[in-house]
Amino acid sequence: MFSITVRDHVMVAHSFQGEVFGPAQRLHGATFVVDATFRRTDLDADGIVVDIGLATEQLKAVLGDLNYRNLDEVFPGVNTTTEFLAKEIADRLVAAVHSGALGDGARGLAGLTVTLHESHVAWAAYEREL
Amino acid sequence: MFSITVRDHVMVAHSFQGEVFGPAQRLHGATFVVDATFRRTDLDADGIVVDIGLATEQLKAVLGDLNYRNLDEVFPGVNTTTEFLAKEIADRLVAAVHSGALGDGARGLAGLTVTLHESHVAWAAYEREL
Amino acid sequence: MFSITVRDHVMVAHSFQGEVFGPAQRLHGATFVVDATFRRTDLDADGIVVDIGLATEQLKAVLGDLNYRNLDEVFPGVNTTTEFLAKEIADRLVAAVHSGALGDGARGLAGLTVTLHESHVAWAAYEREL
Amino acid sequence: MFSITVRDHVMVAHSFQGEVFGPAQRLHGATFVVDATFRRTDLDADGIVVDIGLATEQLKAVLGDLNYRNLDEVFPGVNTTTEFLAKEIADRLVAAVHSGALGDGARGLAGLTVTLHESHVAWAAYEREL
Amino acid sequence: MFSITVRDHVMVAHSFQGEVFGPAQRLHGATFVVDATFRRTDLDADGIVVDIGLATEQLKAVLGDLNYRNLDEVFPGVNTTTEFLAKEIADRLVAAVHSGALGDGARGLAGLTVTLHESHVAWAAYEREL
Amino acid sequence: MFSITVRDHVMVAHSFQGEVFGPAQRLHGATFVVDATFRRTDLDADGIVVDIGLATEQLKAVLGDLNYRNLDEVFPGVNTTTEFLAKEIADRLVAAVHSGALGDGARGLAGLTVTLHESHVAWAAYEREL
Repeated sequence: MFSITVRDHVMVAHSFQGEVFGPAQRLHGATFVVDATFRRTDLDADGIVVDIGLATEQLKAVLGDLNYRNLDEVFPGVNTTTEFLAKEIADRLVAAVHSGALGDGARGLAGLTVTLHESHVAWAAYEREL
Repeated sequence: MFSITVRDHVMVAHSFQGEVFGPAQRLHGATFVVDATFRRTDLDADGIVVDIGLATEQLKAVLGDLNYRNLDEVFPGVNTTTEFLAKEIADRLVAAVHSGALGDGARGLAGLTVTLHESHVAWAAYEREL
Repeated sequence: MFSITVRDHVMVAHSFQGEVFGPAQRLHGATFVVDATFRRTDLDADGIVVDIGLATEQLKAVLGDLNYRNLDEVFPGVNTTTEFLAKEIADRLVAAVHSGALGDGARGLAGLTVTLHESHVAWAAYEREL
Repeated sequence: MFSITVRDHVMVAHSFQGEVFGPAQRLHGATFVVDATFRRTDLDADGIVVDIGLATEQLKAVLGDLNYRNLDEVFPGVNTTTEFLAKEIADRLVAAVHSGALGDGARGLAGLTVTLHESHVAWAAYEREL
Repeated sequence: MFSITVRDHVMVAHSFQGEVFGPAQRLHGATFVVDATFRRTDLDADGIVVDIGLATEQLKAVLGDLNYRNLDEVFPGVNTTTEFLAKEIADRLVAAVHSGALGDGARGLAGLTVTLHESHVAWAAYEREL
Repeated sequence: MFSITVRDHVMVAHSFQGEVFGPAQRLHGATFVVDATFRRTDLDADGIVVDIGLATEQLKAVLGDLNYRNLDEVFPGVNTTTEFLAKEIADRLVAAVHSGALGDGARGLAGLTVTLHESHVAWAAYEREL
């Protein structure tokens, strides 16, 4: 199995509902350093998993819808945990693949993992098939 | 599949028995930067894999039993290799999960990986189901 | 010249006023990974720059006043830029040194630098004498 | 499942053929920071996945054949993408395992992953069984 | 003293002349992860060292002239060592400051440091006043 | 001012004397990831600060005298703190420079900084002139 990963980041505000979150129930924020990993069983005719330029652009586009925003307004009533956001970003990247935005070759992708680093001591990931 | 990872560290002395270890047969030491990754198929009702506060506390507690110690005394007669320690820490974290120390929700965890970084150029990991 | 550095982090919301900030004028947030570097010309009698345990505690205490908060409320009318926060945290650590919270030996410190990493591609620092 | 990883690097020139590569069709270069991960179901009698000294040596030997070279000459007519190189290095390490160069115990390895970091924002990996 | 740093990267081919370079006399290449640090005694009216958006753009522009190139052609007869490139990039950023490309406020900058990471185990820097 | 830095590591056991060290008074250990930074006002005739190959070799040689050892035996009666070791390694590298082991050009070096990372959250440095 082959994979390539591209990295970008997003800076957001949000708050959580539920005692389990303790002080994070207050409005606060995070930088998420986001890694998108694309998997493929075999390389395409150019010898790549996916066009890294398009992968980088599409990750930036998906993050652009969240960047410098208060996620309490973008996702009303939702706990926008790091885990939730990893899945949301992964699903949006998969939609971009299906729309052709990562090129025709991307339709041969096997799966995707999105990892969000919320600090130097904590991160979350979501892995799915395509 | 979802996961979250928390990081902490431990500083220990130890020595190894066996020619394969070369100069590491002498008493020496290591800082292990330890990543504990908890996996779960679906998020719980709060939208999380596990309470990250409890996960951090329990990792610290497990490492606390080893920190600032000579592992030759803690595990007599055992080669406390990085691989061995990864499994030992993983198994202790699983015991903590089963005891309820990571919260009731943690009983829904699917698996666990523990990674020990012994330097900037070497690390070991142990992965198990729950 | 000797130095020691300890690292911790803080997760905050804030917004900026001024066209130069572009989309960061909206309410958003950041994880700041914070490095506090303590400098000293000579080591003290124990062979250290400062008690690393106390340095870690005091950095955590200073960050605790900001953590999981909306900085627009903590510092009304102020642009809480990464640069501003680096100075704010440095000045509070110096106050802690003067109060004796880092131990008597810390009074011999020569200077302090605080670095805030806002992402994997941007950071700011403030350096001052003691 | 256990694993150990060792890290080294290689500095090469190359160019790509195909419009998908844009400006990377020109002769350029890269530092690849290379992680070789060896997997094994159980530890051997010494409590290790593989002799880390031999693993480090063999990774250096495999990279030595590529280091400070123009890959357009080493692999004529091939797009030496990061993905391609990950597989090439993995396959050569597997050959080294089979030749006995990583020790007799290495014959019990279950699999191998090679990851090539081409920058702080992009990396590729190839994973195979042994 | 305040500073901000922005990070980007460049991928180039080159060769060196001189026995001291050993195998690096052959045509090879490197990824340089480049950190540009801007220093200023006091913050400007917006509370910043320099517009981080413009700093990021100008670093990208300076690196764009070198990216995906054979430096033996860009700088004929010159040993384009990591040290040399750190100075070259720093001097070009200073020219951009003087031209107004980093905004009027940037004219108040005190100094600049450019650091080029050539691998996980080696980097070079050049520091100058403005 | 120019600089180059090379990185290596060392794995040691030791214990400390003095209440300030708390549990670190027990025999324990550390991995120190060591960065040696060489500074020079101008580049030499080859366009370098120092021969990076020799710098790497000499750092390895200096660390080799400490690696896989119990520092309580190497430095009897001394608190081998991270700060102390940074100075010790720096002074030994300076002796290597003066002996000619880093090449004739290294005699033009202006200064040296040695940084020891003891974990992902703590490091110490010693800076001196040559």
